[in-house]
Amino acid sequence: MKVNNYADDYAIKNVSDRIDALRAEMKREGVDIYIVPSTDYHHSEYVGEYFKARQFMTGFTGSAGTAVFTKDKACLWTDGRYFIQAEKELRGSKVSLYKMGEPGVDTIESFLKKELPKNGVIGFDGQCTGISEGIVYDRIAKEKQGGLRYAHDLVGRVWKDRPPLSKESAFLLEERYAGENVRSKLRRVRERMDEEQADIHLLSSLDDIAWLLNIRGNDIAYCPLVLSHLLLYKDRVELFADGDKFPAEVRDVFQKNNIIVRPYKEIIEAVSSLPGDSTILLDTERTSYALYKLIPQDACVVEKENPEVLMKCVKNDTEVRNIKKAHIKDAVAHTKFLYWLKKEILDCSFGQTGVLTEISVSEKLEQFREKQSGYLGASFAPISAFAEHGAVVHYSATKESNAPLGTGKLLLMDTGGHYFEGSTDITRTVALGEISLKEKEDFTLVVRAMLHLMNTVFLYGCSGANLDCIPREIFWQKRVNFNHGTGHGVGYLTNVHEAPINFRWREGRTPAPVLEKNMIITDEPGLYVEGSHGIRIENELLVCEDEKNEYGQFMRFEPLTLVPVDLDAILPERMTHEEREMLNEYHKNVFQTVSPYLDEEERIWLEIYTRPV
Amino acid sequence: MKVNNYADDYAIKNVSDRIDALRAEMKREGVDIYIVPSTDYHHSEYVGEYFKARQFMTGFTGSAGTAVFTKDKACLWTDGRYFIQAEKELRGSKVSLYKMGEPGVDTIESFLKKELPKNGVIGFDGQCTGISEGIVYDRIAKEKQGGLRYAHDLVGRVWKDRPPLSKESAFLLEERYAGENVRSKLRRVRERMDEEQADIHLLSSLDDIAWLLNIRGNDIAYCPLVLSHLLLYKDRVELFADGDKFPAEVRDVFQKNNIIVRPYKEIIEAVSSLPGDSTILLDTERTSYALYKLIPQDACVVEKENPEVLMKCVKNDTEVRNIKKAHIKDAVAHTKFLYWLKKEILDCSFGQTGVLTEISVSEKLEQFREKQSGYLGASFAPISAFAEHGAVVHYSATKESNAPLGTGKLLLMDTGGHYFEGSTDITRTVALGEISLKEKEDFTLVVRAMLHLMNTVFLYGCSGANLDCIPREIFWQKRVNFNHGTGHGVGYLTNVHEAPINFRWREGRTPAPVLEKNMIITDEPGLYVEGSHGIRIENELLVCEDEKNEYGQFMRFEPLTLVPVDLDAILPERMTHEEREMLNEYHKNVFQTVSPYLDEEERIWLEIYTRPV
Repeated sequence: MKVNNYADDYAIKNVSDRIDALRAEMKREGVDIYIVPSTDYHHSEYVGEYFKARQFMTGFTGSAGTAVFTKDKACLWTDGRYFIQAEKELRGSKVSLYKMGEPGVDTIESFLKKELPKNGVIGFDGQCTGISEGIVYDRIAKEKQGGLRYAHDLVGRVWKDRPPLSKESAFLLEERYAGENVRSKLRRVRERMDEEQADIHLLSSLDDIAWLLNIRGNDIAYCPLVLSHLLLYKDRVELFADGDKFPAEVRDVFQKNNIIVRPYKEIIEAVSSLPGDSTILLDTERTSYALYKLIPQDACVVEKENPEVLMKCVKNDTEVRNIKKAHIKDAVAHTKFLYWLKKEILDCSFGQTGVLTEISVSEKLEQFREKQSGYLGASFAPISAFAEHGAVVHYSATKESNAPLGTGKLLLMDTGGHYFEGSTDITRTVALGEISLKEKEDFTLVVRAMLHLMNTVFLYGCSGANLDCIPREIFWQKRVNFNHGTGHGVGYLTNVHEAPINFRWREGRTPAPVLEKNMIITDEPGLYVEGSHGIRIENELLVCEDEKNEYGQFMRFEPLTLVPVDLDAILPERMTHEEREMLNEYHKNVFQTVSPYLDEEERIWLEIYTRPV
Repeated sequence: MKVNNYADDYAIKNVSDRIDALRAEMKREGVDIYIVPSTDYHHSEYVGEYFKARQFMTGFTGSAGTAVFTKDKACLWTDGRYFIQAEKELRGSKVSLYKMGEPGVDTIESFLKKELPKNGVIGFDGQCTGISEGIVYDRIAKEKQGGLRYAHDLVGRVWKDRPPLSKESAFLLEERYAGENVRSKLRRVRERMDEEQADIHLLSSLDDIAWLLNIRGNDIAYCPLVLSHLLLYKDRVELFADGDKFPAEVRDVFQKNNIIVRPYKEIIEAVSSLPGDSTILLDTERTSYALYKLIPQDACVVEKENPEVLMKCVKNDTEVRNIKKAHIKDAVAHTKFLYWLKKEILDCSFGQTGVLTEISVSEKLEQFREKQSGYLGASFAPISAFAEHGAVVHYSATKESNAPLGTGKLLLMDTGGHYFEGSTDITRTVALGEISLKEKEDFTLVVRAMLHLMNTVFLYGCSGANLDCIPREIFWQKRVNFNHGTGHGVGYLTNVHEAPINFRWREGRTPAPVLEKNMIITDEPGLYVEGSHGIRIENELLVCEDEKNEYGQFMRFEPLTLVPVDLDAILPERMTHEEREMLNEYHKNVFQTVSPYLDEEERIWLEIYTRPV
């Protein structure tokens, strides 16, 4: 997958010119405030180059943020992960930074309320905006007796050298990987449409489309997806995508299942001309405001989560078998890397390594993965964070920040890969040389929490909201916490962060669903001490059935990730007997599974590094 | 409080005559199916004698069940707690038992759908029926192009010797107990009415009314409440109750707060004639179908939980101080009882005691409570269950079932008291002589789960749904479970089972609210082995603030219940070091708090029974 960093192209002087040009367009269209979000037409976590309009308009290269322009103000909202980066990148420009969540800082909503004049007009590209955001903007405009313009992409008009939409090829995910053919998937979704009495199902989420049609592509960094929309009828499918992407074997599947390809941008026209007497099933969390508003007024809309969301979340047995293989490959690569890293550190004795940096070790790990068969690329932007960088939860090393590694500190690496057999997501934090007692105490706490969740037994019916307090209680007893979810679902060669399951005790907009057999979820507690160190240990877990008895169906987790947890950083005396048993059992499993793929030196090393404590 | 058991009065021959008489009334009113629920006009857990219509019509004396009569069928629905009792009490009558939740057994809803003829009419007393049930009956009737008759109490017409409505006196709960005067409470509720833009607040829940007006009474067994409805206006209060109940000091408070007393049954007329331009705040879970339907069509109804529900759930500091005193009294009574019981068992050496029975020891415990100042009576129907009776979760000893106590078995006692200083609810399971290893293992498991929940530390924002998995995980690791909530809120001299807080991982109709400082909740895991033994250990917990730091406001529990957990039944070697520490810490606290109120012999005994393990 191609990953470019266009940051250098966006020199400050250009940003200023662009804002002037945008304001001219705003004036022409009678728009008082124009909003530029970070997303594409599909709510994607990562977006293609074509969609980096917010970066183009501000120079800020972070993945999350929203720019807002009035006739005399240019503002950027971003969250705590990006404050430092944004301050740096916006320096010298006329764009003001609004730090989300900081006390006294306006939200976008309160800013709009203050700045929008009476009878004012708010503009934005409705295809890049979610339904709930659009509804908020509409309400604010109405309060001022004003209006919305959401049908025009004004940035597009001023972006002369805009990168084209991706032309990368798609490919068929063969049934030996997907485990279910397209006919069967379409049938299941159509049954759900029948239950909802819907004639048409509108689908804009790329991972749902990829799952439904067994296609994968290369249009977005880290996510092997195909830019597309889809209209599913009872008797046919209309896929809105660049037809040149699809090789013969995909076209063959399309033909057999009456899937007609229409140009990507024709979705606008197609949705506008849906029959007025039809009932359309759509997911308001996964459809753009523009498409939602284009649906003919007299059509009936059933607003439900896409049926594909839960269907793809429950992996089939073929997928599970494959995923286990992918995790063994990933574990072998990761173990070989750890052996190499520990040896390098030992060889350099004390002090700085001189050679190793955050980025260089990350590239080294990538090289070990590339040696595994069926490897397709990284499943997300890798995190390699040394010492105090580890405390920045979404740290991503840049040329400037790239720290040389030394001894006596921790290195946190959160990485993952896509294989034909599935996607992986793993975090290991490693001691480089001897670390402090405090770091070991913190490390041991994180390991204990991770182990407790991994070994949880629960009755069928529990959601991640129920179970999240089991690992957190380990933290809470010490009056500490971490400000991210304890886990997320993992897609099969789609998005590595896959809704809707998670381990989050605070319920989000939609309640967490029940954990079903064959779902996959991460277990990744972390502890972050600002300016000092960060620790996160992440295993992927498979939801399995356990004993069924008079009390009900018991469930448990099976670890998919099989990589040693660094014993150099653990204080066994701070663990209970049961916790040490959990760790030893896990390490025994790691050694048994991974050692056959290692050379003799690595094998001996792994035996020591998975010894019982 | 007066508790009568009228069971003997309901001989089978009478039931048959009554059903005939009811059918004559049904015919006269054109009713095809008549439903008789167990509740009063206020959704009360216990009901006064006047309201035992379902018992009158079937002979079944259990507290939960619904009777349904057609022109040729008489049916009773009840749940698993009452199957055995109902079978026995219905024997020889023409009433058929429908076991709720058993496979293949019709629900009331499916029965109505089958039995109701086209254009048929369903009848019930709408004052004794909840809004959601009424809506279901209405929908079923409409499906058959039929109708509802909910304005008439047909059982009332055939119940010639119906006991009168309670005439018991009410009393003022002085401010030194209530901690907040009526003026302040009315102001707070009116503020909430303003937020909801409501002019009138209709209140039918007896505990909410008792809390709001600082009155208590004697109209319902175990619940010191006053039969009443209330209409709260901005400038006045109309209380619908028997005016003769109120002594001078209550009338004085009423006068000062512009509270006008109107006859109890006038609520019907008052609700029917509410102004059509008014906005009425009511709680659909706490208002009868009849009152709901009587509201004039053009009035606006705001359907929200009664503001009083959460207000009374958060105890004020005076209440908390009082409650702690009540719990010390209760602990002293309970400890003296345990000393007496253990001594009696020891004295009788092996074999049956000959004298002690489930009921006699329950009465003995009641006598110890009666010796405490400010004691008003039992806070619910006491459970005293020996050996295999302990496995029947809602067992209540009757003259017939009353088991003589022997040694080598467990005795489970779930009891509680009302004091002016608050209400208590405690369960202790006690070994009578030497019990089996299996019983000790089970007992230890229950104690461990109880201790873990009691010692949970959590971040502010958690609800009982989040935390319930902490004690359950102890059970689930052993592949066992218990089919009741792990805890419920406790009222202050109102209902001992007080909504809306609980420890239940399966969310009910409304999500469990956040646990706030000064809420009181029970911690009562249990293990039940049918035909052998039942174990439940219940402490009441006070929700407290703990450390506040950069991670947020931490919360913890403080045990209010201070009664030893039977060390004779515990296997310390099956507990972790941390669990033993939790138990020892608790027992130390028990001894320090309770011992000053004991005589020398009891004190020595308690010291041994609270020794560190």
